[in-house]
Amino acid sequence: MRLPVAEPAEVDVALLGIPFDGGTTNRTGARHGPREIRNQSSLVRRVHHATLASPFDRLRVADCGDAPVNPVDPAESIELIAGFYASVRDAGAVPLTAGGDHLVTLPILRGLHRGRPRGLIHFDAHSDTYDEFFGNRYNHGTPFRRAIEEGLLDPKRMVQIGLRGAISDAANYDFAKGVGLRQIFIEELMARGVADVMAEARDIVGAEETYVSFDIDVIDPAFAPGTGTPEIGGVSTFQAQALVRELAGVAIVGADLVEVSPPLDPTGITALTGATMMFELLCVMAEAVAGPL
Amino acid sequence: MRLPVAEPAEVDVALLGIPFDGGTTNRTGARHGPREIRNQSSLVRRVHHATLASPFDRLRVADCGDAPVNPVDPAESIELIAGFYASVRDAGAVPLTAGGDHLVTLPILRGLHRGRPRGLIHFDAHSDTYDEFFGNRYNHGTPFRRAIEEGLLDPKRMVQIGLRGAISDAANYDFAKGVGLRQIFIEELMARGVADVMAEARDIVGAEETYVSFDIDVIDPAFAPGTGTPEIGGVSTFQAQALVRELAGVAIVGADLVEVSPPLDPTGITALTGATMMFELLCVMAEAVAGPL
Amino acid sequence: MRLPVAEPAEVDVALLGIPFDGGTTNRTGARHGPREIRNQSSLVRRVHHATLASPFDRLRVADCGDAPVNPVDPAESIELIAGFYASVRDAGAVPLTAGGDHLVTLPILRGLHRGRPRGLIHFDAHSDTYDEFFGNRYNHGTPFRRAIEEGLLDPKRMVQIGLRGAISDAANYDFAKGVGLRQIFIEELMARGVADVMAEARDIVGAEETYVSFDIDVIDPAFAPGTGTPEIGGVSTFQAQALVRELAGVAIVGADLVEVSPPLDPTGITALTGATMMFELLCVMAEAVAGPL
Amino acid sequence: MRLPVAEPAEVDVALLGIPFDGGTTNRTGARHGPREIRNQSSLVRRVHHATLASPFDRLRVADCGDAPVNPVDPAESIELIAGFYASVRDAGAVPLTAGGDHLVTLPILRGLHRGRPRGLIHFDAHSDTYDEFFGNRYNHGTPFRRAIEEGLLDPKRMVQIGLRGAISDAANYDFAKGVGLRQIFIEELMARGVADVMAEARDIVGAEETYVSFDIDVIDPAFAPGTGTPEIGGVSTFQAQALVRELAGVAIVGADLVEVSPPLDPTGITALTGATMMFELLCVMAEAVAGPL
Amino acid sequence: MRLPVAEPAEVDVALLGIPFDGGTTNRTGARHGPREIRNQSSLVRRVHHATLASPFDRLRVADCGDAPVNPVDPAESIELIAGFYASVRDAGAVPLTAGGDHLVTLPILRGLHRGRPRGLIHFDAHSDTYDEFFGNRYNHGTPFRRAIEEGLLDPKRMVQIGLRGAISDAANYDFAKGVGLRQIFIEELMARGVADVMAEARDIVGAEETYVSFDIDVIDPAFAPGTGTPEIGGVSTFQAQALVRELAGVAIVGADLVEVSPPLDPTGITALTGATMMFELLCVMAEAVAGPL
Amino acid sequence: MRLPVAEPAEVDVALLGIPFDGGTTNRTGARHGPREIRNQSSLVRRVHHATLASPFDRLRVADCGDAPVNPVDPAESIELIAGFYASVRDAGAVPLTAGGDHLVTLPILRGLHRGRPRGLIHFDAHSDTYDEFFGNRYNHGTPFRRAIEEGLLDPKRMVQIGLRGAISDAANYDFAKGVGLRQIFIEELMARGVADVMAEARDIVGAEETYVSFDIDVIDPAFAPGTGTPEIGGVSTFQAQALVRELAGVAIVGADLVEVSPPLDPTGITALTGATMMFELLCVMAEAVAGPL
Repeated sequence: MRLPVAEPAEVDVALLGIPFDGGTTNRTGARHGPREIRNQSSLVRRVHHATLASPFDRLRVADCGDAPVNPVDPAESIELIAGFYASVRDAGAVPLTAGGDHLVTLPILRGLHRGRPRGLIHFDAHSDTYDEFFGNRYNHGTPFRRAIEEGLLDPKRMVQIGLRGAISDAANYDFAKGVGLRQIFIEELMARGVADVMAEARDIVGAEETYVSFDIDVIDPAFAPGTGTPEIGGVSTFQAQALVRELAGVAIVGADLVEVSPPLDPTGITALTGATMMFELLCVMAEAVAGPL
Repeated sequence: MRLPVAEPAEVDVALLGIPFDGGTTNRTGARHGPREIRNQSSLVRRVHHATLASPFDRLRVADCGDAPVNPVDPAESIELIAGFYASVRDAGAVPLTAGGDHLVTLPILRGLHRGRPRGLIHFDAHSDTYDEFFGNRYNHGTPFRRAIEEGLLDPKRMVQIGLRGAISDAANYDFAKGVGLRQIFIEELMARGVADVMAEARDIVGAEETYVSFDIDVIDPAFAPGTGTPEIGGVSTFQAQALVRELAGVAIVGADLVEVSPPLDPTGITALTGATMMFELLCVMAEAVAGPL
Repeated sequence: MRLPVAEPAEVDVALLGIPFDGGTTNRTGARHGPREIRNQSSLVRRVHHATLASPFDRLRVADCGDAPVNPVDPAESIELIAGFYASVRDAGAVPLTAGGDHLVTLPILRGLHRGRPRGLIHFDAHSDTYDEFFGNRYNHGTPFRRAIEEGLLDPKRMVQIGLRGAISDAANYDFAKGVGLRQIFIEELMARGVADVMAEARDIVGAEETYVSFDIDVIDPAFAPGTGTPEIGGVSTFQAQALVRELAGVAIVGADLVEVSPPLDPTGITALTGATMMFELLCVMAEAVAGPL
Repeated sequence: MRLPVAEPAEVDVALLGIPFDGGTTNRTGARHGPREIRNQSSLVRRVHHATLASPFDRLRVADCGDAPVNPVDPAESIELIAGFYASVRDAGAVPLTAGGDHLVTLPILRGLHRGRPRGLIHFDAHSDTYDEFFGNRYNHGTPFRRAIEEGLLDPKRMVQIGLRGAISDAANYDFAKGVGLRQIFIEELMARGVADVMAEARDIVGAEETYVSFDIDVIDPAFAPGTGTPEIGGVSTFQAQALVRELAGVAIVGADLVEVSPPLDPTGITALTGATMMFELLCVMAEAVAGPL
Repeated sequence: MRLPVAEPAEVDVALLGIPFDGGTTNRTGARHGPREIRNQSSLVRRVHHATLASPFDRLRVADCGDAPVNPVDPAESIELIAGFYASVRDAGAVPLTAGGDHLVTLPILRGLHRGRPRGLIHFDAHSDTYDEFFGNRYNHGTPFRRAIEEGLLDPKRMVQIGLRGAISDAANYDFAKGVGLRQIFIEELMARGVADVMAEARDIVGAEETYVSFDIDVIDPAFAPGTGTPEIGGVSTFQAQALVRELAGVAIVGADLVEVSPPLDPTGITALTGATMMFELLCVMAEAVAGPL
Repeated sequence: MRLPVAEPAEVDVALLGIPFDGGTTNRTGARHGPREIRNQSSLVRRVHHATLASPFDRLRVADCGDAPVNPVDPAESIELIAGFYASVRDAGAVPLTAGGDHLVTLPILRGLHRGRPRGLIHFDAHSDTYDEFFGNRYNHGTPFRRAIEEGLLDPKRMVQIGLRGAISDAANYDFAKGVGLRQIFIEELMARGVADVMAEARDIVGAEETYVSFDIDVIDPAFAPGTGTPEIGGVSTFQAQALVRELAGVAIVGADLVEVSPPLDPTGITALTGATMMFELLCVMAEAVAGPL
C-alpha cells in the first residue's frame, strides 16, 4: 500500500508479515505471501469506495516489516514469532498480519496474550481444530485447538464461518461441539446471507476483545486460487468483502490474513485479493481503534 | 482419492477412467483428464461435510483403472469402450467414470444397456444432440442423439440442465422439442433456483433406472477453465454441488464426469473441481446403491 | 467470429479494433486486445441461445480492421483514431469496437460526434473521470471528464454501473455529483439486481442517441483476470450478460469493449469473455439498428 | 509473416497449414499449430540478417490457407490432405507447410508425388519409422515407413538428423539399417558439427528432387517446449538455423515444419521458433526455386 | 517409467521417492518432486538410444514407493528416512532416489552406511558444504559437511562438478580446500570438456564404493527451471547426459536426483528432465550392478 | 540485492531503475522490469564465484531508487530521465541502470554527457539504429542513431555484439557502415568465440570513457524469454557472463540492462537473469571505479 516503514512503537496499527509455512502438511508456498501481498498492494488506494473510510488519515499506520522465523525449524519459529508479537503488544500497536500458513496464528495469539482468553471470528474453509496430524500437534491444521487448550481463546466466544470440504473423520466436529465453538458451514451462510450470519457472529463475541483470523481459502478458488488447500464451493470476493465490513463495531485487538501462496498463484490475483482484504480489515480495525466515523 | 485398486467384480462402485478425446472437434486434451483427476483427488477426504455421507464405509469402492482405447482410431475406441463397460455391467459394479470427451458417454451407455432405455439427468452447457459435425456422426457433439436413436435413452425421461452459449443454427433445438427432451437453460436455472429445477428433474426421470452425465463445462470457466469448449455465464461450484446433492433418491445406474482437459488447466483447479464433483456423485450413488442413510 | 472483412461503407455494423494502450498508467497490454479477441471469437457461433437473436441474418456485419495508431505517440494516436471514426460515421456504419485501453473511447466519441452530446451507459469498476494523472489530462483515467468538457456527452444522460475499489481521494466523486452523472456502485447493483438497475439506466438515457462503453474490469477478475486494473468484488459473467441484454430498446449509436489485456490472460478466458460480450452487444445493437425482432 | 492471401496457382511458394493432430498417440495440440505460427510470424521481417536473402522480393509467396481435415476422422483427413496437395502440385506451387502432427507428411508426399521416389532430409528427435502403434499403421510414429513402402521416398536418398531418446525396442533401428536409411544421432551431430553432417546429407540426397521435413522436437525443449513428445538433449535454435542454412543447393520440392503444439507452449516461444524456422526454410527454398543469389 | 511396484527385497535396483523439502531455506516445492517425476516418466522408454543399455532386461527394477517423512518436523524426517534406507540396504537393493531437497542425501547416506566412508561424485551448482544457515546445521545447504563430519563420506574421494553462482562469503571455499574436496567450477568444466573432467572424477573416486548425487540445478534453468535455487550459466541437458554416461565403470552404491520443484515448473519440463536423467543414472547403475554390457 | 537505499551523492555506484516502456512499438511490459529485477536480486549474493570480486566491500553501492517518468507521455519522460541522470552525474556516482525499454539509454547518455562523445559496447540482438518507426524518431529502435547524431557517442568507438534476426530492409545496415560503427553478428561471435571478439571490442573503445548497454534479448529466449522482441539463436547465459567478464579493463562510466519484461516472464527466470547480469556488470564496474583487484 506504498506505506512508510516504521517501528511498532510509532504506530497505531502495524502491518506485519510472517514468511513462514513450516506448518504446512501438503502444498507450501505461503512463506512468500507477505512479499507478494506487499507487491500487489501497490494497486490499493487510500479511501474505501463504499464506506469512505480513510484509515491512513485517522491513524498512524505503517509497514513494520516481517517477524523473525527459521524456515527449517518450526518449533524455533513459533518461539520467535511469539516473542516478536509480545514486543508489538508492548509497543501498543494493533497488528494486522499477512501470513504465512495458519499455524502462525498460534504464536501471534501467544504474543498478544494479556491474561484473559479472547474471542475469535474466524473465516476459513477448514476448522483447523485437529488434535494432531502425522502425530504432530503443531501444524496448520491445529492452531485453534492449541489456542483453546492454552487459554488464549474462549471457545464460547468463537465462531467459524465458511467451513466446507470433505473431512477425514466425522468425529472432527465433536471437539467443536464439546467446547461450544460455533461452526457455520458454507451451506448455512449461503442460505441465511452475510448480514444475518454476521449479526450472530457479533453477538457471539460480544463487546470484549476479539481477534479476527481470515484464511484466504474461505474464498472460492476461482477468486483466490493461490492457496495450499483449496476447497471449491466457497464465497465470492464480493461476499468476502461484505463479511469483513460487518465486523464494524467489534473490539478487534488484532487480525491476520493467511495462506496466500504465491507459487500457486501465477496471475497474482490471490495476492491482490489478499491485499484488498487487508485494506478491508484495516478499515474496520481503524474504526475499532479510533472509534466510528 | 487414495483408493485401493481392484477388479470390477470385487466392488459395488467402480471408479473408472477413459483417456480418450478423439471425438473432440476443436480443443483436445480431455484424454489426460483421468490422470489429473486422480492426481488431484489426493486432496479429497472421506466424509462429506454437509451430509456426513461416508461412501467408503458403506460400500466397496475402488479404482478399477482405465478403459482400453486407441488414441488414433475413434471408431475402434468406441467399440473397445463399449466392450469394457459391458464387462463392468456383467461384474455387477456401478461405474463412476472420469472422461475423456463427451463422446465416451455413448459407448458407456451401450455397454451398460440391458434392453430398456434409461432416463438421463444431464448437466452441460451444450445439448450435444447435433446430428453431425463435419459430416461425422460420432463426435463429442452428437452422443445423446445417437443414444436416443439406438434406444439406449428414453427422451421422455431425459433432462438437460445449464444449457447456454450461442449456437450455429436455431434449428438445433427442434430435435429436442420433437422427441420430448426437456432442456433447462441457464437463465431458467438461475431464475428458479437449484432446488426447484432439480425437483422437476427428479419428476422427469421418476423411479426407474437413470444415468447421470456431468460435463464440467456446465460450471462457469472462472471455476473450471480447463475444458475444450468453455462458455461464460455458467453455474458456480457451490451451485454445482447443490445440483448433484439434489440427485438423492434417483435410481442411478452409472455416472460420468467428462471434458476436464488438463493442458488447458495450468493451475489444476479444474481437475480438483472434477475430483470433488466425483466425490459428490459418489455420495449420491452410494445412497442409490446402499439405500439412504 | 469468422466474419468477412469489408469496408465500413458496405456494412450496417462495423466491428473494429484499436490496438492502443498508450493511455495506461500502470499495467499495459490492452494493445493486443483486438487480436486475441478475434482469435477467441472463433468459438462464438451465430444465434443467441436465449433471445434467438441472429444479427448476421438481419444486418450486414463485417470486421473492418483496426484503427490506425502510433504506439509511441499517444497524442498523435488520439488524432488518428478520431479521424478514422469520423470516416466510419460518414460511411454510415455503427461501430462496435474492441480496445485498447479506455482512453480510446474519447477519440471514438470525437469521431462519431454529430453536434449534440450523446447519452452514455458505462459499465466499469472505475469512473474514469479523473481530471489528471501524473499531470497528464489524456489517459485511461480521464476520458469521460474530457468527453463531458468537450460536449461529446451529456452528463445528465450518463450512468456508470458497477463502480468499486478504493480511491485515492474522496473528492473524486464530487465531479460526478456536480455535473449530475449518476453513479451506481457495485453494492447498489448487487442489492437491487440487474433488472431494476437497468430500468433506471434506460430511463436516464431516454430515447435519444446513446453510446455504450463496456470496460471488461466491471466483471470480477475471477471471470476476467486479464486486465490492467483488476478490482475484486465485481459482477459474474452471467450478470454481465444480463446487464447487456437489458440494453434492448436503447438507441445505440456505437459501443466498445475495452481493457482486455492478453499478456495478463494466460488462459485466454478474458479474451473469450470479451468476444462473447461483444456478441451480446452486437445482438442488442442489431435490434437498435434493424428494429426489434 | 503479414503475407497476402492467395490461391496456389498465383504463387511460386505456397505457405500452407494443416490443423490436424489425429495421428498423435499421447499429447495433442498440434492442430492449433498453424494458427499460432501465423500469429507469431508477425514478428518476422523480410530480409535474412546473415544471408541477406529476401525471398519475397524474388518470388511470389503467399499464405494459401489450410488444407481441409476432419478432426474426428484420421482416415478421411489423410485423403483430404493428399487431394489438396495434389492440387497444389498441379497448380505449380512449391509448398511450405506448418503442421499439424508428423502424420501429415505422409499425405503431403502422396499429393506431391510425380511417379518417382524423392529424397528426404529429415530433422527430428524420433525416426518415425515404426511399423505400427496400438496396432495402428497410420499415426505420427509411422509416416516414413509408410512413405518408403508406398514408393514416395527412396530410402537410399534419405537422412535423419538429430535422433535421440530412449526407445521401446532396439529392433526399431533394424528397419532403417535394412533399407539403407542413414540415421545421424544427436551424439554424432554434436561431435562432428553442423557443417560436416550437412555436407554428408547433401551428398546423400544428391542433385535430384528432395523433400525436407523439420520436426520442431529436434530442437531442445528448452528452446521449443511446446511439442507433444519432447526429448531433452537436443540442438539449440542457433544450431537449428545453421542446419537449415546448409540446405542451400538442395533441389527442394517441398518442406514442412511440424509438431508445434500451442496448448503446451504458454509463452509462445515455440510458435515463434516455428515461424522463424519457416522463414529460414523459405530462404533456402527461394534459392532452390529462383536460383542462387 | 510404468514400472511394477515391489518391495526392496525383490529387486536389484529400487526406485524410491522422498517427498520432503523441510530443509529448504527459500523456495520450497521439492516435496512434490517424486510425484511429478513419476508422472513424466511415463514418456520414458526402455532402451537407451546411444548405449543400447536396457536395464529392465538385465536387472530386477521396481518402484518401491516413498520413504516415510513428517512434513512439519525436519528432525523426525531425517530419522525416518535414515531408517528406511537402512532397511533398503539390508534388503540388498541399490537405491535410486528422486528427492526432495538436498538435505535428504544426508539420511540416505546414513542409512546406507556400512562402516567405511564412501566416495562421492556430486553434480550441483552449489557445494552444499555450509556449516550452518540461520544458525541451523541441518538444511539443504549443509548435507555434505555433515556427511564428512559423520564419516559417511571420504573428502579425498569426493568431487563436485558444475559449481557456480555468487556466494555470501569467500571463506565458504576454505572448508573444501581444507579437507581435500575437489571442486570443479562451471568455467573449468566448460573449458576442459565433459570427457576430460569426468576422467579426473573417476580417478578421484577410484574403484571403491561411491555414491552419486545429482542436483537438478547443475543444469541451466533454461533447461530445468523448476528448482528452488536456480543459477544461470549451467550445463545443457546434452552435457548433463554426457556427464552421467561418463560414470560408466564407477562402483555406484546408490544415487539420487534432487531439487525438482513442480510448483516452479509450470510446463513440466524439469520433471521430464529429472525422469530422463534418472533413466541415464539407471543405465550406468545397471552396469555397475550387473557388469558391463 | 538486499542493498541499502541511499542518495547518489553518498555512493560510488548507484543502482537505478527506469520503469518506462513508452518507446516500445510492439510488446510492452519493460516498465515493470526494475521492480522484478529487484525482487529476484534477493537470490544474488555478495562474492563472485569465479573472480572473487566483492564489489560491496570495495565500493559504496546502494539502490538509489527509480528515475521519474510519465508513463503516458514519452517526450516528457525523456526529459525527466535526462535531468535525473544529470543529477546523478553531478553527484559523482557511476550509474548501473535497470530498464525499461531501450529508448531509456538515450536520456541516460544525455544526462551523463560531459562534452565529449563516449565509446559504447553494446550487447543486443538488434542494432537499434533505425532512423524512424511509424514516422516517430524516438522509440526503442532508434536510440543509438539519435545518440550519434547528438554527439553523445563516437561511432568509431562503438561496437555492437550479438546482432541477428530478419530485418525489414537490408539498407538498415548502411547507416552503421557509413559512420564506422562495428557490428558483430551472432554468427561471427559463435565462430570466433567470446574471448577473441571481446579483445577486438576492447581495442575499439580503447582507454577512454565508455558506456555499456546490455539488452537482455542478446541472450537466447530459451534463457531469457521475458522480453518484448525475442530473437531465437542467441547466446547462452554462460556466454553472456563470459562476455561481461571480458569488459575488465574498460573505463566504464555507466551501464544499463534493459528490456526485461515481467508480464512476458511467467517463471521469473528473465528477471533473475537480469539481476545476475547486473551483478556481473557491477563487478567489472567496481574494478573500473576502484582499480583492479
